[in-house]
Amino acid sequence: MFSNPIFETKNCMSKPLILVTNDDGIAAPGIRALVEVAKKFGEVYVVAPDKPQSGMGHAITLNSTLRVNNVNIDPEVKEYSTSGTPVDCVKLAVKKILPRKPDLLLSGINHGSNSSISVIYSGTMSAAVEGALENIPSIGFSLCDHGIDADFSAAKIMAAKVIESALKNGIPPHTCLNVNFPKLSIDEIAGIKVCRQAGSIWEEDFDERTDPYGKKYYWLSGVMNAYDKTEDTDEWALENNFVSVVPVQFDLTAHKHINYISNWF
Amino acid sequence: MFSNPIFETKNCMSKPLILVTNDDGIAAPGIRALVEVAKKFGEVYVVAPDKPQSGMGHAITLNSTLRVNNVNIDPEVKEYSTSGTPVDCVKLAVKKILPRKPDLLLSGINHGSNSSISVIYSGTMSAAVEGALENIPSIGFSLCDHGIDADFSAAKIMAAKVIESALKNGIPPHTCLNVNFPKLSIDEIAGIKVCRQAGSIWEEDFDERTDPYGKKYYWLSGVMNAYDKTEDTDEWALENNFVSVVPVQFDLTAHKHINYISNWF
Repeated sequence: MFSNPIFETKNCMSKPLILVTNDDGIAAPGIRALVEVAKKFGEVYVVAPDKPQSGMGHAITLNSTLRVNNVNIDPEVKEYSTSGTPVDCVKLAVKKILPRKPDLLLSGINHGSNSSISVIYSGTMSAAVEGALENIPSIGFSLCDHGIDADFSAAKIMAAKVIESALKNGIPPHTCLNVNFPKLSIDEIAGIKVCRQAGSIWEEDFDERTDPYGKKYYWLSGVMNAYDKTEDTDEWALENNFVSVVPVQFDLTAHKHINYISNWF
Repeated sequence: MFSNPIFETKNCMSKPLILVTNDDGIAAPGIRALVEVAKKFGEVYVVAPDKPQSGMGHAITLNSTLRVNNVNIDPEVKEYSTSGTPVDCVKLAVKKILPRKPDLLLSGINHGSNSSISVIYSGTMSAAVEGALENIPSIGFSLCDHGIDADFSAAKIMAAKVIESALKNGIPPHTCLNVNFPKLSIDEIAGIKVCRQAGSIWEEDFDERTDPYGKKYYWLSGVMNAYDKTEDTDEWALENNFVSVVPVQFDLTAHKHINYISNWF
């Protein structure tokens, strides 16, 4: 266990307060699976978008108002939907809804992978990053299966293992975890691998269509090109049947280039 | 000049193709100021949101369609507005609108600072990060003045200096620049300082109101708490009358914690 005093995560002996959110919306099967897992670890509050908010990245709502509504899907937990983005949900939860700062933030389980570069587009992971900003121990979970009927049974078992380890050891401050599950049964999963974000890029295409009035419109689509799949990456881990765990931080500075660019001026 | 062959930015002797975008919308005074600057350096295409998209971070549009419209604000440049986010604008520009991959992407000039942690919430900077992902030399510009009547005259002069240096020297691949201008006249600006993203957090409050039907709603607001203002940070630079330039990258991996977390499993 990391005993450095700057590592603030508590080894929660009392019942932790757990915030659960996601980007697929409060009724998505993935968040229901995560709520089931979370209930084993503490008192659960769900604060999640009232509609799908995939691909919202770190968006916040500045140009319109926000609504919060009580929801009663699972009578064992307190649930609220909001009209905002996943990051709005975290801010509203911490500042307006929860009785105190949560001990743990869990986001997901996302329907679809958030490995490699997807971390910056993902509302699920941005909610976890927002938690890390607030110094709340935070974990984002994603299953490499987009289907509405995706099987979360192995993901639930492995998520519990990751949460248990995080509570026992402590997540470093200003850090969250990006956990991706391969689309496999529990017997097929090779283990858990801690890795780095693979170099990759979404190669977009735009599906061009014509509306009934003769005007063009577009649907964004694309395929992931993971150009960097060495053994230390999340892409390698997932392709080799491991659960990938990437520690994530939010200092975007390209420190190695500061000296070079300083010489320009 | 950085002559390492992996540094792909060309020392543009021919007329570069320049993509200009922002998050305040295509008609904002800040982008008009940037278009004026950009025209001195090459052939300009503007592809920008048709409405304000501040705080959209790295959001992309997955759950609805995208529209693109011709705009004629400045007859000297080709201009298109889109219904999407700043990142959508970059993707649409590169894949659908521009005749070829641009030589330079300029985003802004944002009305308001995007220093320190604002970089992850900012649509202006996310557009530049998306450019860096596509390996387009990209620079985001922001003026520390939110006003619609902000004075961009010093920002225009300093933006030209940064662009000139970037074209001459070459921006490292998969890197963009986050340039913030203090709210000062050109004579008051102390110079240009290359720095790191300051540690900071937005301390939100939610302005709680009641609609005409008796239901509560919220406006997100807040103040920046820059808890880290050492001399190597962008916050220090701006407070000391410098233009801040932070090189920005998109690997969110907390590399220093990989070994520690690996020991959990």
